[in-house]
Amino acid sequence: MDSRDRVVGKSVKRVDAFAKVTGRAMYTDDLCTRDAYIAKIVHATIANGKVLLVDTSEAEKIPGVVKIITCFDVPKNYFPTAGHPWSTDPAHQDVADRLLLTDRVRFYGDDVAAVIAEDEIAAAQAVRAVKVEYEEYPFVLDAQEAMKDGAPQIHEKYPNNILGHTTVRRGDYAEAIKEPGLIEVEGWYETPTVQHCHIENFICYAKEETDGRITVVASTQIPHIVRRIVGQALGIPWGKVRLVKPYIGGGFGNKQDALYEPLCAYLCTQAGGRLVKLDVSREETFVSNRVRHGIRTHLISYLRKDGTLVARKIECFSNQGAYASHGHGIVAKGLNAYPQLYPCENIEGDAYTVFTNKSVAGAMRGYGIPQAMFACESHTDDIARTLGVSPIQFRRDHLMPVGYVDGFSKNCNYFDTFNQCMDKGIAAIDYDRKRKEYENQTGDIRRGIGMACFWYNTAVWPISLETSSCRMVLNQDGSIQLQVGETEIGQGADTVYAQMAADTLGIPFESVHTISTQDTDLTPFGTGAYASRQTYTAGFSIHQTAELLRARILDHAHELTRMPAEILDIVDGEIVRTTDGQDLMTLGELATEALYSLDHSEHLTAESTYQIKSNAYSFGCTFAEVEVDIPACRAQVLNVVNVHDCGKLINPALAEAQVHGGMSMGIGFGLSEILLFDEKTGKPLNNNLLDYKLSTTMDHPHLEAQFVENFEPTSVYGTKSLGEPPTCSVAPAIRNAILQATGVGIDTLPLRPHTLFDTFCEAGLIKK
Amino acid sequence: MDSRDRVVGKSVKRVDAFAKVTGRAMYTDDLCTRDAYIAKIVHATIANGKVLLVDTSEAEKIPGVVKIITCFDVPKNYFPTAGHPWSTDPAHQDVADRLLLTDRVRFYGDDVAAVIAEDEIAAAQAVRAVKVEYEEYPFVLDAQEAMKDGAPQIHEKYPNNILGHTTVRRGDYAEAIKEPGLIEVEGWYETPTVQHCHIENFICYAKEETDGRITVVASTQIPHIVRRIVGQALGIPWGKVRLVKPYIGGGFGNKQDALYEPLCAYLCTQAGGRLVKLDVSREETFVSNRVRHGIRTHLISYLRKDGTLVARKIECFSNQGAYASHGHGIVAKGLNAYPQLYPCENIEGDAYTVFTNKSVAGAMRGYGIPQAMFACESHTDDIARTLGVSPIQFRRDHLMPVGYVDGFSKNCNYFDTFNQCMDKGIAAIDYDRKRKEYENQTGDIRRGIGMACFWYNTAVWPISLETSSCRMVLNQDGSIQLQVGETEIGQGADTVYAQMAADTLGIPFESVHTISTQDTDLTPFGTGAYASRQTYTAGFSIHQTAELLRARILDHAHELTRMPAEILDIVDGEIVRTTDGQDLMTLGELATEALYSLDHSEHLTAESTYQIKSNAYSFGCTFAEVEVDIPACRAQVLNVVNVHDCGKLINPALAEAQVHGGMSMGIGFGLSEILLFDEKTGKPLNNNLLDYKLSTTMDHPHLEAQFVENFEPTSVYGTKSLGEPPTCSVAPAIRNAILQATGVGIDTLPLRPHTLFDTFCEAGLIKK
Repeated sequence: MDSRDRVVGKSVKRVDAFAKVTGRAMYTDDLCTRDAYIAKIVHATIANGKVLLVDTSEAEKIPGVVKIITCFDVPKNYFPTAGHPWSTDPAHQDVADRLLLTDRVRFYGDDVAAVIAEDEIAAAQAVRAVKVEYEEYPFVLDAQEAMKDGAPQIHEKYPNNILGHTTVRRGDYAEAIKEPGLIEVEGWYETPTVQHCHIENFICYAKEETDGRITVVASTQIPHIVRRIVGQALGIPWGKVRLVKPYIGGGFGNKQDALYEPLCAYLCTQAGGRLVKLDVSREETFVSNRVRHGIRTHLISYLRKDGTLVARKIECFSNQGAYASHGHGIVAKGLNAYPQLYPCENIEGDAYTVFTNKSVAGAMRGYGIPQAMFACESHTDDIARTLGVSPIQFRRDHLMPVGYVDGFSKNCNYFDTFNQCMDKGIAAIDYDRKRKEYENQTGDIRRGIGMACFWYNTAVWPISLETSSCRMVLNQDGSIQLQVGETEIGQGADTVYAQMAADTLGIPFESVHTISTQDTDLTPFGTGAYASRQTYTAGFSIHQTAELLRARILDHAHELTRMPAEILDIVDGEIVRTTDGQDLMTLGELATEALYSLDHSEHLTAESTYQIKSNAYSFGCTFAEVEVDIPACRAQVLNVVNVHDCGKLINPALAEAQVHGGMSMGIGFGLSEILLFDEKTGKPLNNNLLDYKLSTTMDHPHLEAQFVENFEPTSVYGTKSLGEPPTCSVAPAIRNAILQATGVGIDTLPLRPHTLFDTFCEAGLIKK
Repeated sequence: MDSRDRVVGKSVKRVDAFAKVTGRAMYTDDLCTRDAYIAKIVHATIANGKVLLVDTSEAEKIPGVVKIITCFDVPKNYFPTAGHPWSTDPAHQDVADRLLLTDRVRFYGDDVAAVIAEDEIAAAQAVRAVKVEYEEYPFVLDAQEAMKDGAPQIHEKYPNNILGHTTVRRGDYAEAIKEPGLIEVEGWYETPTVQHCHIENFICYAKEETDGRITVVASTQIPHIVRRIVGQALGIPWGKVRLVKPYIGGGFGNKQDALYEPLCAYLCTQAGGRLVKLDVSREETFVSNRVRHGIRTHLISYLRKDGTLVARKIECFSNQGAYASHGHGIVAKGLNAYPQLYPCENIEGDAYTVFTNKSVAGAMRGYGIPQAMFACESHTDDIARTLGVSPIQFRRDHLMPVGYVDGFSKNCNYFDTFNQCMDKGIAAIDYDRKRKEYENQTGDIRRGIGMACFWYNTAVWPISLETSSCRMVLNQDGSIQLQVGETEIGQGADTVYAQMAADTLGIPFESVHTISTQDTDLTPFGTGAYASRQTYTAGFSIHQTAELLRARILDHAHELTRMPAEILDIVDGEIVRTTDGQDLMTLGELATEALYSLDHSEHLTAESTYQIKSNAYSFGCTFAEVEVDIPACRAQVLNVVNVHDCGKLINPALAEAQVHGGMSMGIGFGLSEILLFDEKTGKPLNNNLLDYKLSTTMDHPHLEAQFVENFEPTSVYGTKSLGEPPTCSVAPAIRNAILQATGVGIDTLPLRPHTLFDTFCEAGLIKK
């Protein structure tokens, strides 16, 4: 698109590569000063009930304990935690159901009290010494159980614990299914509660600034949003809060929520403004941060013999856990995936988000789509099997057609992307040959090959605000600093921002210094990293701001050279006269002259906001080859390929890395990961990385990433979402491969030996 | 001037008051991480010569020593250190005569080698263990001696060691003095080498950033300038350097120089990019930072009996020490003070800046004017005494008249300020009564009263560039962040900036959050704190940027309210309709709507550069009442009053504090301070705060500050220089009071017992 393209599209080295492999990159804990007070949280040890008494007398005697704050001490400012831009329309604001600490316990691990101490040991001892007396209530862990009359009510405002209910109605489902000769395919599909398991646990620290404002340094994806939430939670003007985000060790959506930033800020105010650090353990991360919504989905499809989808019923039950967080948005997004992926004239869809006494579910990579794709694409293979057609052919015939436009988002399927992606995947994994080879196997060890597709949005417009601001500062050597609010969270955003800015300005990539740290005092407003939005949304503001700065530079070049600005350009850091290609001066010379001129001194900078009012479909698919050891109830992925159309790749190597990470997460979701809760107590059972079976590099084969590059027409650099998509279609592809291998469709994730055992027994493959 | 004035002119509390008294304000050392490597410098122990060999073998054996860099290892990039804005005209660039370390030693304390170690102790041991062999040359400490043929030549390029020579020629001095009946008054006046003695010694640390750039955190007045110098010294693009200035504990001009920032940055690159801290001791601060130029001045005045100054000869010899630093600018400024303070038609003026083997002289509060005023105003009292007229009356008759315009700076004396100031001073100290009372005293203990005047420029235009940039960021609560490059160095700049911005924007003072830390990556370009420029120069850019932001806010208010922007105003943080005074919304409501609007989202910010092409005279005077114990050779200041016209006071309490500090410095300069050097070795003798007699609160009476507020017409807030002026006229006022008390004019500062003893002996008041 841009005639000045030089580094966009190239696999340049990450700007932070060296820093990260050498340990030079500074994370929150690296930045915390040595005199920090340490805060630790006293978590509830019941799943539902009320705190009657918090006895801190023994804890207070421990040397080094500074102060203990209980649920009875904190202000009663209910605040929302979801990392969404604020809405000035109260009807669209997130649910404000959290307090800094609570005497109304709603899950095992809820926050009851907090200790501030001079060191880790005193804080840990004090947490153990705090005695809490509870009045226990019955609890409920299952979403459908929680909806029943008589179930324990978790929040007063929500009868039957229903936080949200979305419907999709198209045509007349009840009438349509009366058509004679229709084939009915039905299934229940269930996905588990899993956790993000980013390398760096949540950590933050807070201190009062010289002017009485509060600075919070936090491992967050969304500093500008958390600033607002801290202000709300403490009941102080938002400008009194400063949020700083250094490098962070992953987020995956868990850190797209205000976690303990508000509590930590409050504790700092209770410790005379002294610096208070709150460093969350892995065990707490599993239980008291956020988890992925477990969703149970009921699908009924009615098809003609030729495969035409006549009518479909969709029921989704999403387990919200104890507080609203991102809440209903996740299953609502999932529900909307079905009619777009496989358009159908008669649809009856219902999605429920239901409070339970589990850990709180929030945002996680894919935001409802991995759950929906597991149900939808497992069901698609069940349909193909029932119809006796190839799963590939069924998809070629019935997936979202070219030219399809979604009425709400206005997203359009401009290209024949699905076929392009599937063709690439088929070739890469040698699908046709293997699919044939694996037909009709017998024996204990069998192989299968399967696949699944997905679509994914880019950013959140028109559901919510999409806005990005950017500032560029020209240095005397012709290099620039680049600031945007969309955060680097490990994905490589800083690098692609530098690539974009370099090309639009016409300067070398090395001349762009992306400011990685977001500081709400100084960084232009941006809502952060989520919804796979950064490259797309920040692209608009970076392009616009670079064009602004470029115009200012060329105006100044005009002033200095007296050549018309129209025949001047910036090429590779040189001011060039386009009529003959003559280099007139370097950008560094211009910047130095502009700044130090006794005639006209000006610091050349540019800053602007771009409000985005578009969105874009990303597409892709996964192919998986699996070996199943039936007696051992073990499935092993032998080959796996993801193919993505995320538009133009700004940096192919970084894009590939994103896909690798997402595929790994998808394999874990598919095969091994589940956070378990004790049915008798509600206590989490495996909230550690020994017992929770996180997928690692030892658990999967080479992760093959391929791309179809259709330049996205709405995007200034032709790019669209890639952060979340790679995790969406892996699990159903594995499930469908096992289906080919064994003839058994396993509809409950993860596909771990326990589940395989039960299902294989039921199917008669093995005996109990 | 501004109809919205609400806090400008009020003594609001400093924005950092609480932080500073509670220790919450973070200085460089507070910010340094615990794993810092420690650097220490091996200083030369000869005054002039050459390093033959640096033997590091013993030092390298000391456990914890990381690396030792000698003068033979460093790159040969000569760089200037003076804290001036860069000039693109090579003829106006500062003298580049420094290397990071040098084998050509030019003063006792020159930098020969540097040690990097894991801790302070290892570094200190290693410095002692490094053995340096020298070839010694003869040395010279006196400026006039250094000018003689045959004196040791310190820099090859400068014959007779003359760094600079400025002349002032007006009329025909030789012809004019032939007029019969003229009265000749002659004197030699000498000021000492003194040091700034800021509370916080110079300190800096450097580390390589994640992208390979170098960050230097330093106690400096001039981060943007030091960034450039570090780039020059290391031979790397300036954009590869980031300078950060936290709170600093005073500077007074010493930190208007690149001190050890370049060396520290270089050491960091030699330690694999690890953080290296260089914390300078008090002893090193005295010797190896910068000192005030000792200047010897020869004045001859020819007057008619009515006091008309017919002709004047001025010769100044300024002792530069070993390197150029700010160099000739200081005595050149001093020389130009004479003809403006007492206009005269026939002038022959010569000012020389001369290299010697003393510590390097640089900028210090007053920048040549305290030296010039000591000579000029001592001489004025000598004239009045010779003519037999009152010193006050002589000044009333002959000081720069109302309407005087300087041909170079275009500064104008708009008001009858000198008389206004003197009248206030006379009243405050009860001058007339005391002057009369102290006439014709006898006895050992005598009192006298004296006075002296001064003028001072504001900022540096047209000698050099004056430019200031400002950025303002509107928060969702209607508060703003304010960034300027002109640094808070203890004087209260952040507070007056907030006052200005609040009034121009129309928001409460508490709603302005001045970002105190300057970071060259993020802070709009400004040259820093020097030349008493901040309030004046930053005032322009703050006003301009606030008007820009205000216009954007009112445009947005127009969009939201559909009222014409012309009838909208911002008053005390409210959007007001001026036609009826109705509050339409708060600025916070507007900011929140502007940012989060789904219709039009915009982050309201403003940034602009203001190049200043004006300057302004500040005026004032000191009155001092002194008691002299003749046998003890001791002078004690009983009362002292400074009266200043620095235009409108933005914050009277802070202005008073500035005057107090300057007066204290002036008393030290007048009575006790001098850095002594051994004539035999060139070694500094009293480079510590025990032997160097810094004036403290115990040494002076109540410091009385009074003001004449003539609104400066060129200044957007009516203000002009006050930072340096208070130190300019104190010493001659004390000298003139001793003259009244004893009849003896002592022309060598400081007026310490040694000097009084010699002079009183000479005058026959006491016997040797």
